[in-house]
This record gives sequence, structure tokens and C-alpha cells, in this order.
Amino acid sequence: MELIDGKWLSKEIKKEIAAQVDQIIAGGGKQPHLAAVLIGEDPASQVYVRNKVKACDLVGFKSTLIKKDASISEAELLQIVEDLNNDPDIDGFIVQLPLPKHIDEIKVTLAIDPKKDVDGFHPMNVGRMTIGLPAYLPATPFGIMQMLDKYHINVAGKECVVLGRSNIVGTPISLLLSRKANPGNATVILCHSMTQNIKDLCRRADVLVVAMGKPLFVTADMVKEGAVIIDVGMNRIDDPSAPKGTRLVGDVDFDAVADKCSFITPVPGGVGPMTITSLLMNTLKANQKEIYG
Amino acid sequence: MELIDGKWLSKEIKKEIAAQVDQIIAGGGKQPHLAAVLIGEDPASQVYVRNKVKACDLVGFKSTLIKKDASISEAELLQIVEDLNNDPDIDGFIVQLPLPKHIDEIKVTLAIDPKKDVDGFHPMNVGRMTIGLPAYLPATPFGIMQMLDKYHINVAGKECVVLGRSNIVGTPISLLLSRKANPGNATVILCHSMTQNIKDLCRRADVLVVAMGKPLFVTADMVKEGAVIIDVGMNRIDDPSAPKGTRLVGDVDFDAVADKCSFITPVPGGVGPMTITSLLMNTLKANQKEIYG
Repeated sequence: MELIDGKWLSKEIKKEIAAQVDQIIAGGGKQPHLAAVLIGEDPASQVYVRNKVKACDLVGFKSTLIKKDASISEAELLQIVEDLNNDPDIDGFIVQLPLPKHIDEIKVTLAIDPKKDVDGFHPMNVGRMTIGLPAYLPATPFGIMQMLDKYHINVAGKECVVLGRSNIVGTPISLLLSRKANPGNATVILCHSMTQNIKDLCRRADVLVVAMGKPLFVTADMVKEGAVIIDVGMNRIDDPSAPKGTRLVGDVDFDAVADKCSFITPVPGGVGPMTITSLLMNTLKANQKEIYG
Repeated sequence: MELIDGKWLSKEIKKEIAAQVDQIIAGGGKQPHLAAVLIGEDPASQVYVRNKVKACDLVGFKSTLIKKDASISEAELLQIVEDLNNDPDIDGFIVQLPLPKHIDEIKVTLAIDPKKDVDGFHPMNVGRMTIGLPAYLPATPFGIMQMLDKYHINVAGKECVVLGRSNIVGTPISLLLSRKANPGNATVILCHSMTQNIKDLCRRADVLVVAMGKPLFVTADMVKEGAVIIDVGMNRIDDPSAPKGTRLVGDVDFDAVADKCSFITPVPGGVGPMTITSLLMNTLKANQKEIYG
């Protein structure tokens, strides 16, 4: 069994990005600049955004954090988006989700200029990805594709079972794995809450991507000998033996499953660290006008 | 075995559309207006476009055919697209593919205003479909969803095997079948030229959608008793016993397979007739501003 070390890989990629930023600036180019909009006091969102800003510093990006109270109106937020769309110094920006309930997330997502949509959530980028045009890929699927690539895991012709059909993980990773590309060319089985024989399907999988949000859902009897497992889950469960009384686990029972796998991502330290790296890569692409010219 | 009669169903839907057009006009509304751009002399394209114009007449739509020589420049075609985008009387339009080789099809597709993209090929509509927002659906997948709906074929929780991953059929139908909707909620397995065990996968299918362009590819030994078969293929093969020496067949060996199925689409007279109906439905949605408001 080989561990897919997202923590290590994300550091490596960040080093490459930092080197490219040095080159860009040495060549008289514009420093990449990411903006993040954070609304309200959601603790998880605050951590995510803080980490994104930190990562920008690390690779030499400029970053701007726009923090607003949860009472902001939808119109005010849309104005912020509009201003960021029009600010020539901003290469890309994200609006951290979730938003307060009185704000329509879809409306906000649609208001972002696709050219600056480094989260890859705008339908224009989703559609470009779906039909195989260059696009900003959503962070988690992009991170997974990087892992498969850097660990030379060949998925072509393999059966890939994806558990979960969310717009930000399950559906896009199923599209990326099945398209004519490298990595890609897999035979993808997309499973979800309505799938009837999920255990049988998992047992067939050469590659299993799990993004359900169900702690320890995948057990040893669901995994084929030699399978590749990508665990997107990140769940905090009670554990009286842990110092804080809780611990982080994935959607896969790592301890029970690891020995059967050829490759597996740990939680934490697997897919998680790759997501911010993906955001940085998208921002660099925006700076270099790689997607939209 | 029950035949899914696309010829009959498309007539029924056209009657419904015609009735809605009467209502719209009686209410003082604007007559739906579809434009088609046809470049060059490709015989198949000429037939398709002629049939689309005929279908418009039948349901009471206004139609405009713009026919240009294959020597047209890309810039001239882009100007035609721009003019159609800006013409307030045109609700929707299509540029018939394929285009001559000196014209970039993607550039032309991207130039179409998504609000008028009744073929559903623009990334904006593809992306909206992918994330479950209202969108113009591409004609063939939309037609298949209509068939499943009108024949009350429940695919929820069923294993649906899709053969072929094209941007206009395989990939979008796999997305539509797997999304949280009715029809939908299927467990979708998307297969393609790199899939290794395609016969085994077909044998597992509760629903089999075949869009490969390989005449008579699906044989009786590949079909489970009671399966639903949707045959998107349309191939002309030699047949010395036929009056013209050729006949039209699908990607499925209908005669060998039909008895094993619960439902099956014939070729011709199955999926084919539904595609123009889908285009009419999209044009009506455009006229009624159902997708983009």
C-alpha cells in the first residue's frame, strides 16, 4: 500500500507555483492577486479563508480579504462582486460559501465574471469542463486529478466508482475521470443516495472516490484487493481516547481498509491540502490568461 | 415488450406545442421564431434543416432559414450570429453543424447568446444543466428524457448504462439520468471506447442507452431480461434484399433483442423524431423566457 500524501504534494506544487511567480515578476509581469469575500462569522468559513490568504502569502501572491457582516444585503454583495469583476488588479476571486440565508447563492455565483471565477463554480466554467474546453476546475476534483497524475495512477479503462453526486465534488470528478484525457478515460459509475446496491458496486471498483460526508462509511468488505481509494470525507466524530474528545475521520474506515489498497489518501493530510493548491493554480492560470486568453 | 414510439410521441408533443402557440397568439403574445443557419451543401445537414423548418410551420412558429455558401469566412458567419443575437424578433437559433473546416465550430458556438442557444450546445447551457439549473437541454438527451417521462419508465435507483460519451448525447444523458429529478436518480455507468468489459456492463443494465454509431453493436447476449433500451444509433448498412440496397439500423440489433426488453425504441421512428420536437420545445421556452427570465 502506498499513501497518497496530499500534504507533501501540495507543498511541492506550492514550491513550483512560487518559482513561477518569481519568474513572472522577474520578467516584469503582474503579481498574481486573489481576493476572497467572507460574509458572516461561520467558524469553518473563517478558517478556510484564513488558510487561503496564508497560502497566497506563501507562494508570493497578493491577496485581499473582504470581510462583511452577515447582515449585508444581497444588493451590496452583488456590488462587491461587480467591483471585483471590474478591478484590473484582481486576477481571480472567491465568495466563500455558505452565504447567509437571505442571499441567493446562485445569483451571486452567476454574477461572478467567469474569467475571474477561480472556484470554478460558474456554469460557464462547469460547462467548459463538461465539453472538454479549458476551464477553471473546481478545487477538490482538480486536486484529485493532480494526485492521480503525480502518483502515476493510470485510470484509463478502469472502473471508477464515485460515491456522491454533489456539484462541487462527485459530479465534476465523474466528468473529469471519464473524459478523453490523461488522467481520464475511466469507466465511471456515479452513485448517490438513491443507488440500491452501493456495496456491490464498491466491491467492483478499481478506483473508489468517496465524497458522501458519512464518517467511516466504506468498510473493508466493500473494497477490492488492490483498489485505489480517494477519500474526500472530512468528519469530526466523538473519540473519548482523543485529547479533545473528538477526531477527524474520512468517509472511509482507513485503518480497516488501507492494507487492501494499492493507493489510499489519508484523512487528514490527503485530499484536503490539495484544494487550496488547486485554488492557487487557478489563480495563476487567471493571471497568465490561460483559460480565456 | 412495449415499443417506445417516438414518431407518435413527437406528433403528440407537436400538437401540444401548436395549442400553446395558438394560446400565446390569442393572448396577444409574440409568435415563436426560430432561425437556422445552414452553411454549405452537406446533404444530411440540408435534410435536417429542411425538417426543422417544416416542423416550425407545423406548430405555428415563424422560421427563418439563412443559407450561405461553404466559402463564407468565419468573420462573416460570426457577424450573422451577432445579428441574430441582437434581433429582437428571433427567440432562438441554431447553426447547423458540421461547419466547413476553415471555420472554428467552438468559436461560433461560444458566440451564440446562451439565451438564444436552443441547441443547448453553449457551455453556459451545458453548465447550467450540469449543476441542475434550468437550461436549454441538447435535443437528443431532452428527447430521451421526454420518452422516459411519457412512458412512465421509472429509472430511479436503476443501473443505467450509457454507451458513448459525446458532448451532444452520451455525456449529457448520463448527467440527466443521474441528477436528483424525475426522471432521474439513476445509477449511471458511462462507457466509451476505452471501457474494457463493455459486454459485462451491458448485461447488468436495467436501462441501456446506446449512442456509439456502431451498427447492430448490441446483441441479444448483451441484454438483461426486462431491460429498457434506448437506441440513439442511426446507421445506413448494405442490404441486398432492400429496394435501395441499403437500410437504416440502430446501434442495437433490434430483431434479436426486442423480445428480451420491457421497452425499446425502434430505428427509425424512435429517438430520431424526438430531436426536432426538443428543438421546438426549447424555442417555445425561449419565446416564453422560461430559462433566463
